[in-house]
Amino acid sequence: MRTGIYAGTFDPMTLGHMDLIERAAKVFDKLILAVAVSSRKVALFSIEERLEMAKVCVEKFKNVEVDSFDGLLVDYARKRKVHVLIRGLRAFSDFEFEFQMALTNRKLAPDIETLFLMPNEDYSYISSSTVREVAQFGGDTSQFVAEPVQKALHLKFARSG
Amino acid sequence: MRTGIYAGTFDPMTLGHMDLIERAAKVFDKLILAVAVSSRKVALFSIEERLEMAKVCVEKFKNVEVDSFDGLLVDYARKRKVHVLIRGLRAFSDFEFEFQMALTNRKLAPDIETLFLMPNEDYSYISSSTVREVAQFGGDTSQFVAEPVQKALHLKFARSG
Amino acid sequence: MRTGIYAGTFDPMTLGHMDLIERAAKVFDKLILAVAVSSRKVALFSIEERLEMAKVCVEKFKNVEVDSFDGLLVDYARKRKVHVLIRGLRAFSDFEFEFQMALTNRKLAPDIETLFLMPNEDYSYISSSTVREVAQFGGDTSQFVAEPVQKALHLKFARSG
Amino acid sequence: MRTGIYAGTFDPMTLGHMDLIERAAKVFDKLILAVAVSSRKVALFSIEERLEMAKVCVEKFKNVEVDSFDGLLVDYARKRKVHVLIRGLRAFSDFEFEFQMALTNRKLAPDIETLFLMPNEDYSYISSSTVREVAQFGGDTSQFVAEPVQKALHLKFARSG
Amino acid sequence: MRTGIYAGTFDPMTLGHMDLIERAAKVFDKLILAVAVSSRKVALFSIEERLEMAKVCVEKFKNVEVDSFDGLLVDYARKRKVHVLIRGLRAFSDFEFEFQMALTNRKLAPDIETLFLMPNEDYSYISSSTVREVAQFGGDTSQFVAEPVQKALHLKFARSG
Amino acid sequence: MRTGIYAGTFDPMTLGHMDLIERAAKVFDKLILAVAVSSRKVALFSIEERLEMAKVCVEKFKNVEVDSFDGLLVDYARKRKVHVLIRGLRAFSDFEFEFQMALTNRKLAPDIETLFLMPNEDYSYISSSTVREVAQFGGDTSQFVAEPVQKALHLKFARSG
Repeated sequence: MRTGIYAGTFDPMTLGHMDLIERAAKVFDKLILAVAVSSRKVALFSIEERLEMAKVCVEKFKNVEVDSFDGLLVDYARKRKVHVLIRGLRAFSDFEFEFQMALTNRKLAPDIETLFLMPNEDYSYISSSTVREVAQFGGDTSQFVAEPVQKALHLKFARSG
Repeated sequence: MRTGIYAGTFDPMTLGHMDLIERAAKVFDKLILAVAVSSRKVALFSIEERLEMAKVCVEKFKNVEVDSFDGLLVDYARKRKVHVLIRGLRAFSDFEFEFQMALTNRKLAPDIETLFLMPNEDYSYISSSTVREVAQFGGDTSQFVAEPVQKALHLKFARSG
Repeated sequence: MRTGIYAGTFDPMTLGHMDLIERAAKVFDKLILAVAVSSRKVALFSIEERLEMAKVCVEKFKNVEVDSFDGLLVDYARKRKVHVLIRGLRAFSDFEFEFQMALTNRKLAPDIETLFLMPNEDYSYISSSTVREVAQFGGDTSQFVAEPVQKALHLKFARSG
Repeated sequence: MRTGIYAGTFDPMTLGHMDLIERAAKVFDKLILAVAVSSRKVALFSIEERLEMAKVCVEKFKNVEVDSFDGLLVDYARKRKVHVLIRGLRAFSDFEFEFQMALTNRKLAPDIETLFLMPNEDYSYISSSTVREVAQFGGDTSQFVAEPVQKALHLKFARSG
Repeated sequence: MRTGIYAGTFDPMTLGHMDLIERAAKVFDKLILAVAVSSRKVALFSIEERLEMAKVCVEKFKNVEVDSFDGLLVDYARKRKVHVLIRGLRAFSDFEFEFQMALTNRKLAPDIETLFLMPNEDYSYISSSTVREVAQFGGDTSQFVAEPVQKALHLKFARSG
Repeated sequence: MRTGIYAGTFDPMTLGHMDLIERAAKVFDKLILAVAVSSRKVALFSIEERLEMAKVCVEKFKNVEVDSFDGLLVDYARKRKVHVLIRGLRAFSDFEFEFQMALTNRKLAPDIETLFLMPNEDYSYISSSTVREVAQFGGDTSQFVAEPVQKALHLKFARSG
């Protein structure tokens, strides 16, 4: 069985992430969606909130499992006995950052391969940080995230506003 | 009448910004220079200081109005009934960031178009952050910013030094 | 009156070109679509064919005039007394080529400004060369070009096939 | 069974191609190496020569089949009932060309997904065109191509020299 | 005598930095390794620790002198009467940042030239920030940094962990 | 004595090339300007014409020698016992092509180092191909090339026109 891991902070999950999950779920027999507990920056949503949103967003895909991980991604992949990491490569993603990370992961774990997929070009400009910024200023996020995430963003900024 | 909005933090305004304002003021009947009240990062200059510097720097252009805005730029543009946003596209600007922002703005407001202009190549390497760094270390900023901005930078770092 | 020139080889005109024409026709009072007689490469369609296709494709835009030009674009712009050149800046366009051309044109004619617009992201990957290649192999071009161009491509390759 | 297609001109096959084939052959159950009969440019080696070299280079990989194809790659993939295309994404590859091609292929065949893999960074700078150029001037190609290809290059340029 | 300055934060020094130092030490008669006292971000290692690690790492190169500097690099270069700055240009470095800095330095000091060298491609993906991140999560850094730096990282995160 | 080689087709030499020669001639004790006899494309000027133009353009630099070479550049460098190749790295140059070539040369000759310099930003957009195109259409090339080259271009296109 061919299994892949798609890891990220998902703070929050966007339609671009969901498009990629749908594509990867077709290419592989099973997909593990691995939500990173800690990230470089302070997250807007807690790990529990991010896991909950992720689960709601992907429940329609039967071969996708949502999990969380902490520490190095390659250590998590080994623990799960998975040899394929999936990354989205948007036209507007940080291409160099993606390559650096993939090559670093390859040095740390030569048996694990990183595969890149392209999301639908309609979502190629969406990033979680843009979504957070639009939501913070009360903008309409319906074209960027799924409905449960819209509600969560609304609640988050209503509380903090 | 064709009106455009050129928005930014202008922390502080550079010769590159001024070159772009001059070009845009020729292409459009009227140009609104919109200084963002809040920005992603903590600004060196207050919104009042940034507005004051901007006004002094562009007073020679008769069809340029200086204003401030808070919140989403597209909301401000709609309030002002303007359908054209101007952005400078430097060889060394963050091209991907510019595209992401323009596409996000288009989704939020399909009736508003973003137009990109190139500054003079002599200014293509100047950024506000570089100017702040040079000024902080007491370097000569006369090739990067206009005289009033030089003085403001000098005062700012003399005070904090 | 604010007039802009959108020049190119249009060999053939794509949906991406048409999207850009629609956007530019809103931003300017008048748009001149300038079809280059000679180009760097041997064109698939003759200048007469390219002009004819262009006219059919843009006849719905009332403020767009189709014309042809030979020689340097800045010389043509001066002859037409137009000071604004329009270029599409696709995520996948040759960004450096566009900048080089714009800066060269600025040196040749400092009074003429180049403005960049983004086409709809749905068309950001379409290029005339891709369209020609797909058509050559009998592929379906309906998502890349308008109907009259589809027919012209079909005839062209039927003849040469 | 998960099958992928890795298509190209392979004029000639480099160590970078071979590294990618090895990686893809691990990620998928079966890999079809599809050598393009016709290409944009005049090939140095004939399709027979390129097929022969490809077969020799990959005979050690048991789940790799060498085939040739003409026309659109997506038509070939459909004929073979394969839904995954593999592409190498070198740091120095033409990133924009790769994206354009993948998005065009997606429009032509939405059921076929393109996956990108990174070759070993030791091979990230090797291109078939560089190899041909070095061989043409009598340079040592042993660090760029496998031994059978070295010999073929030597013969080719000895004959033409 | 031809002298060059290779400046940076070296927080910590990587195998990529050391590869570049070795190359620059061959091209120039003397190389000054200038460790920046203050940097844009909070450093993991103190300036004393970074100087100490740098000295240990380069002691095998007889024509390399380790020094520290504060303030603008061009001011330091002038004080040392050196007219050549060396920068590494990795495939995955921030190319635009490098160019901006070099052009800004040229404006501040037209008599000082910046020269770019490429590190070995094996090290092209290594950055100090990646190394810090891997070490923080207890990953093996032996492929990224020299032994003394490995030990320092181990101690640093053991203390903070 | 530190000697560098600056190689190219120089078809024709531009003000950008001359700016780079001036900079390299200051950094090195001696600079060899190596004009490539054969190039990838058909040259506009013959090797004799290109050598003659190069000599006239650099005669003011006392430590610059003009020479021609055929075959691989690294073979020429070894024959001349030079270990440093100089390349200009324009903001608008083909960055990836430059890196590929430099890494290929390093594989062919590990003892030879490639150093990159930036031309003045005023010349960063100039390429020989742009100059040829402008001249072909009778445009003014005085801002792109030195006077002897202007004359040569004029004669060349008058003859062929």
